[in-house]
Amino acid sequence: MATVQVKLGERSYPVAIGRGLLPSLGRRCRTALGRTAAALVIADTNTEARYGRVAAAALESSGFAARLATVPAGESSKSTARLEGLWAALAAANAGRDALVVAVGGGVVGDLAGFAAATWNRGVDFVQVPTTLLAMVDASIGGKTGINLRQGKNLVGAFHQPRLVLADLDALKTLPDREYRAGLAEVVKYGLIGDPKLFGLLERSASDILLRRPTLLESIVARCVAHKARIVAADEREGGLRMLLNLGHTFGHAIEAATGYRKYLHGEAVAIGLCAAATLAGNSGVEPRVRALVKSLGLPDRAPGLDPAKLRGLAAGDKKARGGKVRYVVCERVGKARVAADLGEAEVARAWEAAVKGGR
Amino acid sequence: MATVQVKLGERSYPVAIGRGLLPSLGRRCRTALGRTAAALVIADTNTEARYGRVAAAALESSGFAARLATVPAGESSKSTARLEGLWAALAAANAGRDALVVAVGGGVVGDLAGFAAATWNRGVDFVQVPTTLLAMVDASIGGKTGINLRQGKNLVGAFHQPRLVLADLDALKTLPDREYRAGLAEVVKYGLIGDPKLFGLLERSASDILLRRPTLLESIVARCVAHKARIVAADEREGGLRMLLNLGHTFGHAIEAATGYRKYLHGEAVAIGLCAAATLAGNSGVEPRVRALVKSLGLPDRAPGLDPAKLRGLAAGDKKARGGKVRYVVCERVGKARVAADLGEAEVARAWEAAVKGGR
Repeated sequence: MATVQVKLGERSYPVAIGRGLLPSLGRRCRTALGRTAAALVIADTNTEARYGRVAAAALESSGFAARLATVPAGESSKSTARLEGLWAALAAANAGRDALVVAVGGGVVGDLAGFAAATWNRGVDFVQVPTTLLAMVDASIGGKTGINLRQGKNLVGAFHQPRLVLADLDALKTLPDREYRAGLAEVVKYGLIGDPKLFGLLERSASDILLRRPTLLESIVARCVAHKARIVAADEREGGLRMLLNLGHTFGHAIEAATGYRKYLHGEAVAIGLCAAATLAGNSGVEPRVRALVKSLGLPDRAPGLDPAKLRGLAAGDKKARGGKVRYVVCERVGKARVAADLGEAEVARAWEAAVKGGR
Repeated sequence: MATVQVKLGERSYPVAIGRGLLPSLGRRCRTALGRTAAALVIADTNTEARYGRVAAAALESSGFAARLATVPAGESSKSTARLEGLWAALAAANAGRDALVVAVGGGVVGDLAGFAAATWNRGVDFVQVPTTLLAMVDASIGGKTGINLRQGKNLVGAFHQPRLVLADLDALKTLPDREYRAGLAEVVKYGLIGDPKLFGLLERSASDILLRRPTLLESIVARCVAHKARIVAADEREGGLRMLLNLGHTFGHAIEAATGYRKYLHGEAVAIGLCAAATLAGNSGVEPRVRALVKSLGLPDRAPGLDPAKLRGLAAGDKKARGGKVRYVVCERVGKARVAADLGEAEVARAWEAAVKGGR
């Protein structure tokens, strides 16, 4: 087992990573909070039976009064209607200021449950139990919570740090192959923005990684979590450094939006975005390595059939709607990224072309 | 003009108190934020025409792109439906992370608008322009925001500090007499919990205060704000000291609930609660002074016709629903209050009797 500390002063918290951790959830929560309380476990229809009930039972056996609330699996649960449903569940559970909310699932469950926790009685304790690779290495850490509106994704939300993140690698055993691979895109991203050794490990061990070897997984997840923890500690509210985590995401978000969030999983779109962003680095040799790695992990490296200009327009419109300009994260070399304000028009256009057509 | 600083580290903010301040709102916001932005002014049907439009114009003239959103006056606007309406208004205004939300009104508008600001894009800048006495001395300061659910008041919310509070005393000129007096109940409370001189001033100058003499008002509001600022700075999230601000409120909330939030204004219920709480202090001489002052300010000192045992049951049920026990704030002498854990059953029962039947 590995433990990574997210250092945020009095809001610091541990991320526990290992196999067979879920049954220890109650004990760990009691230690993290220093007490028991009314607890609402929030799962989705994918995680309820396998993990949600185990989580609730573990909490009960440690003295928490736990209830389970389940939302439909999928992005559409990040809605005001589901949020109101969770508020009603918290009221029904007599959850007061000392209540605990536990998210058991992927990014959707974590974002929704975290926002319910952030807003219940002006903020109650929250614990993340990520069950997807993507949530383990990214979404469960850093305190971003929220829901979508008809007008856009994540328009409503709060920064609300968990008190504990428990990443039980056993949950990855049951993750569908496509979702597992999609999570690997964020792992590749950590390698690119700050960890050349991790990137090298991915290149060397792609096939073992696809076989989900547990020891390999533990070290990979722990490395990613350590990166994210360091960045969040330095820039909790995304003033600067945290933007590096958006490498590939400007392209990826546009591809997701252009395909109605149906054709590509988030991680798949990010994989394509990482390849496109790699073309921005010039002749550094990054791009062929990224593209080869992405392919060897079974991820797409292009989104054929889309219109590069339209994609770019989507990214610009999205940013404008949020009162900002498109800023690209550039990977200068493997392990080193920066926010670029100095890109030429031709270079940017070429990157959007690459997102659709692939490598040179 | 007086300025009180609420000291909360990098989240510190000024409270400007004086006459004729509203036209300077734009300039003051630009100074507080160090920039301009898209701004949404939120008013209610009472404040829209007189103050909301002036606020929006003042922001426009200082370079903000301001829009005005209006909600119906009254507590029922602290609802999920109104909140969603404000989120839609923010989306329509292309409000991004750098947006500004300005509340122009009483406690309801401040709580609702503040929660919209707390949750938009994970939290945007927020400015309070309180237009009632109660909001000036209490609700606009300290960062409590939120809405009501069918299951209870303020069950959903966030701590979100404003960047600036602008209390233009001219707004009090148009405040209905009953609302003005209700606000005075919170002023009496500040005297009781920490300011014997303020309490003495209220006793001596009750008739001038009812005439709303501007210089008197400025010094009274500034004193109250300074008290609240000190308490909030010491205990932002209501861990201890901030509980003293609940003097009289346990009784008051029960009276409001028992009468369906229709018969008594919040401040009126608090006035009754202050008299009831004063009986808890024993033979200290506090109670007759509180009761006399409350009456001389035209406020009720009892809620005749209600059942003391039922009121007490409401307070207990409310606390239980929030996972806690009823804790009473006791005023030992004028200017000195504490949270009491050592009250006898007979004493507590007597106080609930007093809430209904008045003084001995």
